Amino acid sequence: MDSKDLSISLEELQLAARNHGMPLEALRYSITPVGLHYLLIHYDIPLTEAESWSIELGGLVDRPATLSLEALKLRDSEELPVTMECAGNGRARLDPRPVSQPWLLEAVGTARWRGAPLGPLLEEAGVAGGAVEVLFTGADSGREGGIDQQYQRSLSIDDVLDSDALLAYEMNGAPLPPQHGFPVRLVVPGWYGMTSVKWLTRIDVLGEPFAGYQQLHSYRLRQQEDEEGDPLSRMLPRSLMVPPGRPEFLTRERIVDGPCALEGRAWSGHGEIVGVDVSDDGGQSWAPAELGDSPGRWAWVGWTYRWDAEPGSYELCCRARDSAGNEQPVEPLWNLGGYANNAVQRVPVTVV
Amino acid sequence: MDSKDLSISLEELQLAARNHGMPLEALRYSITPVGLHYLLIHYDIPLTEAESWSIELGGLVDRPATLSLEALKLRDSEELPVTMECAGNGRARLDPRPVSQPWLLEAVGTARWRGAPLGPLLEEAGVAGGAVEVLFTGADSGREGGIDQQYQRSLSIDDVLDSDALLAYEMNGAPLPPQHGFPVRLVVPGWYGMTSVKWLTRIDVLGEPFAGYQQLHSYRLRQQEDEEGDPLSRMLPRSLMVPPGRPEFLTRERIVDGPCALEGRAWSGHGEIVGVDVSDDGGQSWAPAELGDSPGRWAWVGWTYRWDAEPGSYELCCRARDSAGNEQPVEPLWNLGGYANNAVQRVPVTVV
Repeated sequence: MDSKDLSISLEELQLAARNHGMPLEALRYSITPVGLHYLLIHYDIPLTEAESWSIELGGLVDRPATLSLEALKLRDSEELPVTMECAGNGRARLDPRPVSQPWLLEAVGTARWRGAPLGPLLEEAGVAGGAVEVLFTGADSGREGGIDQQYQRSLSIDDVLDSDALLAYEMNGAPLPPQHGFPVRLVVPGWYGMTSVKWLTRIDVLGEPFAGYQQLHSYRLRQQEDEEGDPLSRMLPRSLMVPPGRPEFLTRERIVDGPCALEGRAWSGHGEIVGVDVSDDGGQSWAPAELGDSPGRWAWVGWTYRWDAEPGSYELCCRARDSAGNEQPVEPLWNLGGYANNAVQRVPVTVV
Repeated sequence: MDSKDLSISLEELQLAARNHGMPLEALRYSITPVGLHYLLIHYDIPLTEAESWSIELGGLVDRPATLSLEALKLRDSEELPVTMECAGNGRARLDPRPVSQPWLLEAVGTARWRGAPLGPLLEEAGVAGGAVEVLFTGADSGREGGIDQQYQRSLSIDDVLDSDALLAYEMNGAPLPPQHGFPVRLVVPGWYGMTSVKWLTRIDVLGEPFAGYQQLHSYRLRQQEDEEGDPLSRMLPRSLMVPPGRPEFLTRERIVDGPCALEGRAWSGHGEIVGVDVSDDGGQSWAPAELGDSPGRWAWVGWTYRWDAEPGSYELCCRARDSAGNEQPVEPLWNLGGYANNAVQRVPVTVV
């Protein structure tokens, strides 16, 4: 896409100024430092207090409960390195561009989340017969699509029990920062970030599928407004590289001094990453990268590629594929909401 | 400015996705949590290591020195709460809009910076006769204005000695995050952020004024390219409010339920804040806010205003003035680089 073709509106800029991506040189960290992890906040960061915080667990359960932060911390805990990506990552590269948070490629991060596993909590509460979904409610509230709402998302009972979902209260070994859901958030490994409700206040077991705005209207793949569409769920595979060399300030185009190691990370919510390929001709020809370590089964895997760069102009690309048979497309696939655009990254480079 | 009038380019969006502002509801914190403080990085976050880090102190000094992080930490330290703002804050509200990082209003934050005061270090090194400036060099490198460079800025000897400048190695009680200059950065209280060089590698005492790109070309107030222009230095006064009520997701317009307390913070690098006024009619009439506490002499001061809101549509504004006689203008003052636009904040609000 030419820069000429892009004209972001004030509304989109306001969102971009609030909700930041991860600068791609931060791909060098297997665990993203706080402040570099991407952030998407629908409304405002709510004012929350640890001491008075509680989560109501109710609906179709035999034993409803009120969980304080303290009570949650007394439970068995688990720490999981999880790669999380916004479902809208890549939106600003679609043409025509769906108007919302204008992500380019950077809406990702990997954190060590510690919290209480959700499954045992639900088992103790006793999920009653007829239960089909679990609804999670956050403390952030605002208006969207003409509807006043708190942020809410549901998961099917099966998806909850199949997952390693946590009620997380630590990020990278410290209490959650306000912007990441202090004091408690849901973290659902492998799923796009919209699932991992922040500032969690309620967990309700439902006998009917949740029909709220963020479930039935937002976060669905469709071509036209009147379609029901397919709900977004797990992250499609994506690989990203640390842009090599050094940048020009404004254009961010890269200047590279000669042969160098390209490095990056790749992830998928559908399975293991089984391959990453690199191209230096804009995706016409590909060569395999070497896969490296991962901080955990729900986190990205590192990759490297030795690039024997000769002087000239190049467009570097990388693409990942997973064990479920998904591979990144070379061209974006358009949809109305601008979701799940996992087309390959393109990095213009001049080798001097 | 109408949203119709704004059309941000891909280059600007790329910068906005990297360099984030402070979501304005974070004005509620007197010290900005890590990850919410604004960030402006000219090139890439460099890869830095604490163990091998050293700062060369040289040029016109009697006793040149190499300072390791460890040696720096053994020196007397000071912790200062400092409000820091990007010189380009407000740029995207200028018309025509200078093309660079498209800040709206959020390029600010207040942190507790701990480090070794710079003055005593220079005194020990012995500033030689003929010295006029001190040059600070960061480890971040790239191309800007056609020039390959490391980020460098200078201060006059007098400005250094008059200031409470620190070589900071802690932010809010923890080691600097990579994106804020790990392991050591300069912090110059009261000045726009371009002065506080991150990832500091060299301090050179100069016999001539520094004539580098970031001093003579960037960060100057001018109307045309061929002007010499006035260098930017201390922050002009600005006040910002926590947008009241709740937002609409896309437009960020606020819905307010009735009378409420407006609150915000104000700062100036030229003197104490002596007054903040609030308007609910777009700046036609003003009423004084009540000033509150400040975490320190170099940090913002809180303010509150009881707004007896009746149902209807409003444009809320706030403006600050300082003890040096500076007051925020109601309309922006244009300049080529888009710097120091401290025109009053405007917050469209619907009271229901």
